[in-house]
This record gives sequence, C-alpha cells and structure tokens, in this order.
Amino acid sequence: MSTPFLLGILGGMGPLATLDLMHKLLRATPASSDQQQIPHVVWNVPQIADRQRALAGTGPSPLPQLLYGVEQLNRVGVSHIAIACNTAHHWYEALAQHSDAPLLHIVDATLAVFDGKEKPRRVGIIATQGTLDAGWFQHGFTAMGIESVQPTQEELRQWFVPGCYAVKRGELRTGGELLSLQAQALRDRGAERLVLACTEVPVALAEVTSPHLAVSIDPAEALARQCARLWLAQRETWH
Amino acid sequence: MSTPFLLGILGGMGPLATLDLMHKLLRATPASSDQQQIPHVVWNVPQIADRQRALAGTGPSPLPQLLYGVEQLNRVGVSHIAIACNTAHHWYEALAQHSDAPLLHIVDATLAVFDGKEKPRRVGIIATQGTLDAGWFQHGFTAMGIESVQPTQEELRQWFVPGCYAVKRGELRTGGELLSLQAQALRDRGAERLVLACTEVPVALAEVTSPHLAVSIDPAEALARQCARLWLAQRETWH
Repeated sequence: MSTPFLLGILGGMGPLATLDLMHKLLRATPASSDQQQIPHVVWNVPQIADRQRALAGTGPSPLPQLLYGVEQLNRVGVSHIAIACNTAHHWYEALAQHSDAPLLHIVDATLAVFDGKEKPRRVGIIATQGTLDAGWFQHGFTAMGIESVQPTQEELRQWFVPGCYAVKRGELRTGGELLSLQAQALRDRGAERLVLACTEVPVALAEVTSPHLAVSIDPAEALARQCARLWLAQRETWH
Repeated sequence: MSTPFLLGILGGMGPLATLDLMHKLLRATPASSDQQQIPHVVWNVPQIADRQRALAGTGPSPLPQLLYGVEQLNRVGVSHIAIACNTAHHWYEALAQHSDAPLLHIVDATLAVFDGKEKPRRVGIIATQGTLDAGWFQHGFTAMGIESVQPTQEELRQWFVPGCYAVKRGELRTGGELLSLQAQALRDRGAERLVLACTEVPVALAEVTSPHLAVSIDPAEALARQCARLWLAQRETWH
C-alpha cells in the first residue's frame, strides 16, 4: 500500500491558487483513467501569516506554519513536495532542511522552460515585492543573457497588490482588470514575455481572458509539468 | 499550531471530482481573506480500485485503499472527514469504525436540503448502479413522502456509465451530453427535481450548461455546505 511516488502540495497561499495548481497537475498528466493520474496529498490550510506582510516587516513570519505543513506532509509519506506559492519560496532553504522528502523549486521549474529555446531579449516579472527583492528570476535570466523588466513601486501599489488581494477576496474580475494593467505596463517597457510569478495572477488573467496570457509563462504550470514528468517516469512501476 | 478544526477530504475518486468539491467548499464559505477559508487536507490518490466494478463483482474491493487514506488523514490530525465520492459511501461503516475523526455522510447532507421546504412529488436520482442498489436516497425520500425515479438498466448502460467514464478521461463535453440525456429521461418520467448523486455528473452538466442544473441538487454541494457550517461555527475561536 505504500506509494513509491506521492506528491505533497504545501498550499493554502491562497487556497484558490492551490486548486489552480491541482488543475494544472491533472492537465499536465496524460491519463485515460483516474488511476493514471498523479497521486497527491494537499495541505490546503490558509491559516498562515501573510507572506507579503512578513517580508515587508509589517507582520509575523509564516515559517512556523510552513514548517508544520511540511511536517504533516512528511508524516503521510510524500516522496516530493511542491510549494503552491512563489513568495513562500523565501523560506525554501529552511523548509528543505526540515523535510525528508525533497522540495521542488518553482523558480528552477520556470527557468527550465527557456532551456534549449530561442531566448527573448526582455522578460517581464509580475511578482510580489518580496519575490522581486529576492532576485531569483532576475539572477536566472541574467545568467541566460535575458534582461528583466520589473514593476515599479508605484505600479505594485496601484495595480499588483490590490489585484492580488481582490483575487483572495474572490473578486476575480476586479483582480484580472488590475493585473492586466500591470502586465501592459511591463510590455510597454519592452517585455516580450511575462513570468506570472505569483499564483494569483494566472487565475485572475484567465478570468478576464487577457491577451497577455499568450506571451506569459506560468510558474505554477511549469511546476505542475515538472511534477507530471517525475510521476510519468515512475507510473509504470506503480500498482 | 494544532487545529481545532481541520477537514480531511478522502478524494481521488476521481481526482477532478475532488477538485470540484474543494471549489464548492471555498464558494460555500463567506470569506474576505485567505485566513477565513476552511482549513483542509486532501488525500487525492486515484490509485484505488474502481468502485463501480467492485460493487458489480467484476473487480477488487477499494476498501484497503480507502482505509489507508482514512488512516493518513487521521495521522495529520483532521477533526472531520468528508468523502468526495457518492459510491464510496458503501464502505462508510467500515471507514467510520476505523477513524478517530467523525465521517460526514453525503446522503445525510443531501436529504437535509429538503428539510423545512415544500417537498416535490417525485425526485430523480442519477447515480451508479451501486448507489442505486444501496437505496440510501430512495429510503430517505420514502420517509419524506417523496417518490424516487431511477434510471433503467438500459439507460445506465447507454448514457450514465459511458458519460462518467468520459469525464474520467477528461472528455467533459461528451460526458455532459450523455448525462444530459440521462437527466432528460428521468424528467420525462415525472421527476421535478434531480439528485446528481455521482460526483462526475455536476461537473459534466456544468460543462454543457445543462438546463437540468436549475432543478438539480448536487450532493457534493450539500456536503460542502455542511462542512462550511461546521467551520463557521468554530472560525471565531481560531488563530
């Protein structure tokens, strides 16, 4: 009954973004029956300190709650853990040290999308201040010879932050409209592609059928595809 | 860090129906922030014996895998468990005995929808042969003075069974068209309301924007609302 492959998803940040990752997992897995789909267990507990506020120094750290979630996922025997939140990757090192199961990294999965393909000159990054400050995507892009285009402080304040919190309140259309303005601003500054590096953004842009989706890379989808590849490599040995 | 309320969802039957229940949970909970949403952990492991075949005597029992899922949910401290599959309620008694956390019952949640309201004369039940044979809904309706209308063997073979398996293959539109024919047949025999007592059915009818949805009761939604009520009663005492 033990599962050689069992994906753990550390979610709840927010709970709707976690469902979005789960849908992407199912879509990324070619399957002609339920039994061929990726086995996963999901910690979707949103009672966790706000990541954006913690990184801005205006709220408590979510680390204790993240560690608790990782512990619970390990307790049920997960073989891998994916984190359904870009910003929460700030605590990646501490979580990885605390986990028997290896943790996948959403930035690695996203950067791998550009491997072996013709590179764009400029890529826009739609992300929280915390993710932008960490510089994960920018460092990766620099190493590939790609220039990063970032939102300004003013754009974050006016469009990105209220857009994300609208999604969290369930107002997807409002969120989509605000985040579309953010996307347009980055493209106006020369971004040929966009990385939607906050799990609320693709959900909101899909709600308003945004044309920006056509040039966007969704890290949640990149992560889902990485999970699906791991599962497909082991699927034949299962049950 | 312990959670006085933590809903466990025994899912994977199929994995998409589990996501559907999770969406309904989020929609059933009034929340203005992530933190107000229902905390839940989801066992979405579809490597489980086919329930319909087990009950037809043509396949192995899913009970060992269901018991394993219940054990894992208990291991992470769930306070309640909901089962995201009507047919799996066949093994409800064995699972409830095996669980420290109480198990909710999807049929009780569904029958409660009729409490204190004017009763329809006839209600159609769209369900697997196993669920129909168990008679859970029919017994409940008889006790309320409501007549049940069931699919015939021929209808199940022609519409219901292929419709469900189409959904499981990801062919939602095909599934929706077949299940709409099943719904129409029950209404033609006098059903004023329909109970969509297989978790694939509401997903598929929504895909084809079926007019039958307007007179339908979705047990997954009834179950989600029951979970939300339990959470709301405790929410103020949390964090």
